[in-house]
Amino acid sequence: MDFDRYDRIRAVQWQGDHLRLLDQRLLPQEERWIDCRSAADVTQAIKDLAVRGAPAIGIAAAWGVVLAAKQGEPLESALALLRAARPTAVNLMWALDRMKARITAGADAVALEREAQAIQDEDLAANRHMGELGASLIAPHAGVLTHCNTGSLATAGFGTALGVIRAGVASGRVEQVFAGETRPWQQGARLTMWELVRDGIPAKLIADSAASHLMRSGAVQWVIVGADRIAANGDTANKIGTYQLAIAARHHGVKFMVVAPSSTVDMATASGEDIEIELREPAELLAVAGRRTVVEGAEAWNPVFDVTPADLIDAIVTEKGVIERPTTKAMQALFGS
Amino acid sequence: MDFDRYDRIRAVQWQGDHLRLLDQRLLPQEERWIDCRSAADVTQAIKDLAVRGAPAIGIAAAWGVVLAAKQGEPLESALALLRAARPTAVNLMWALDRMKARITAGADAVALEREAQAIQDEDLAANRHMGELGASLIAPHAGVLTHCNTGSLATAGFGTALGVIRAGVASGRVEQVFAGETRPWQQGARLTMWELVRDGIPAKLIADSAASHLMRSGAVQWVIVGADRIAANGDTANKIGTYQLAIAARHHGVKFMVVAPSSTVDMATASGEDIEIELREPAELLAVAGRRTVVEGAEAWNPVFDVTPADLIDAIVTEKGVIERPTTKAMQALFGS
Repeated sequence: MDFDRYDRIRAVQWQGDHLRLLDQRLLPQEERWIDCRSAADVTQAIKDLAVRGAPAIGIAAAWGVVLAAKQGEPLESALALLRAARPTAVNLMWALDRMKARITAGADAVALEREAQAIQDEDLAANRHMGELGASLIAPHAGVLTHCNTGSLATAGFGTALGVIRAGVASGRVEQVFAGETRPWQQGARLTMWELVRDGIPAKLIADSAASHLMRSGAVQWVIVGADRIAANGDTANKIGTYQLAIAARHHGVKFMVVAPSSTVDMATASGEDIEIELREPAELLAVAGRRTVVEGAEAWNPVFDVTPADLIDAIVTEKGVIERPTTKAMQALFGS
Repeated sequence: MDFDRYDRIRAVQWQGDHLRLLDQRLLPQEERWIDCRSAADVTQAIKDLAVRGAPAIGIAAAWGVVLAAKQGEPLESALALLRAARPTAVNLMWALDRMKARITAGADAVALEREAQAIQDEDLAANRHMGELGASLIAPHAGVLTHCNTGSLATAGFGTALGVIRAGVASGRVEQVFAGETRPWQQGARLTMWELVRDGIPAKLIADSAASHLMRSGAVQWVIVGADRIAANGDTANKIGTYQLAIAARHHGVKFMVVAPSSTVDMATASGEDIEIELREPAELLAVAGRRTVVEGAEAWNPVFDVTPADLIDAIVTEKGVIERPTTKAMQALFGS
């Protein structure tokens, strides 16, 4: 399949002596690049959300270790610095553990550069493979709905859930894409729509609360989302609003697909009940685009993730394979226990 | 019950020779009043959305007819002007039909002023009555979730769904209120939170897509919403996102209440399938607070209402009485056929 036509965005670019990151805070208004020349620069870019998306954060951090090695900085302190940039990010820890294992094995700067490049290349390859696996589940002439941003911006390229959608478009199965705004950060409105318009994929933005009305209209056959963490029984933590889409999908007979690299699967977490949900500042809901929209003195409840129970998920797609109707047994068979 | 403590906002105020309207477009940042001295002024305020909410629009229009009568303008053209201000608003037509009947019966300006005052007073009385009826359905220590704005701003005072919530707070049954933002216009964030904070009611704003996660937490026992039109079988058209809340409520065993004056019931419309849903400009989703948030060239799908099927509704509360588990037969018994 002609994936290249739909895979032209690279937000994390190694330049031989420094790392270039597309500043995601400024999209879509401005495409400004940040040059990182040290582990501290990369840490700051992760903290500031200039780079976001679990796989992209992991890849950027790996390059941060390479920058430290090239400058003769102490690698242990670079690892600690990067690790603390977003403490709850599973992929960040996974990528840094890989780099640390190479350091422990005595790797030099050149070997570390090869390892970081491998992490990046493997992520892109995994996404394209997941794209093929996921798209093969979709019957022709489909409309699909996605949430948040899981595309090239969030990964080495192509994307996870958005990679399946790209592969579905490339193979002619997906004819129309809908993207939810994804309040409060608007990643769907700002980032996913930017990717889809750039790639020339037929796409429409919807308010998050219009999803059920859309499903009732018959315009979508699949909801396709990413994951922040997948528990051993298939329960999936993802951006707030994912759970609501899964309930609505089941109500309308629309299928629900989760797409994530196997590094997102956490077999040490038995179920979604063991996943703590991050509550963020009320301020994120009380202002829009920097302008206060809610009366002074108002309170807000701002959970940024939720858990979708496995029994609402029709398929979990990873680079290791697809699990339909996930159970702990099926998860253990694919990912070990 | 001490309703007065929770009923202090009056957004539509007759001043004897002109009509004062609280400009809802500027809330919560600014409380600016608009003085209307002619039917044309009132028409413009309705068109510009300075006044919104079906009952409030009807009341303002009735006062517009009084202004025309006081200035000796031709009343037929004033009626036509006001009627065209928001052509799909059921309550606007209902209020103007009432004024027209008085005109046809030969009423003078003084009699028309009495009729407009009656429309306004009856709306407030109906809201307080609905408040009592609706609150009596709620068990003590309840958390409730509402959507859009159905409060004093949208009515003569007290509100419909928000009136039930106010009565629930006054009677000690409701302990915590949650309000959804209500994208794309943010009426929940801008207007409902303004009312709740002003009245000292414990309230938290949530992203529309956090509603299911909230219900799963056990924090809400009722979803309470208004209606734009109720069909003969109980199917209810309301602000986009209402349908999604009803699906989520049923999934979690949370009860779902619709509160609206009987003038919202349209027995000539057999079911929700006969209600046409207004699609509005994509621009409303592509910019937030006047700032473009989505890439140029992007498309959007922006339905502003949806239909909640009667079988997802536990109670319809009107000033004529309560219908639990609505059916066409029960609707006909209360509202005629």
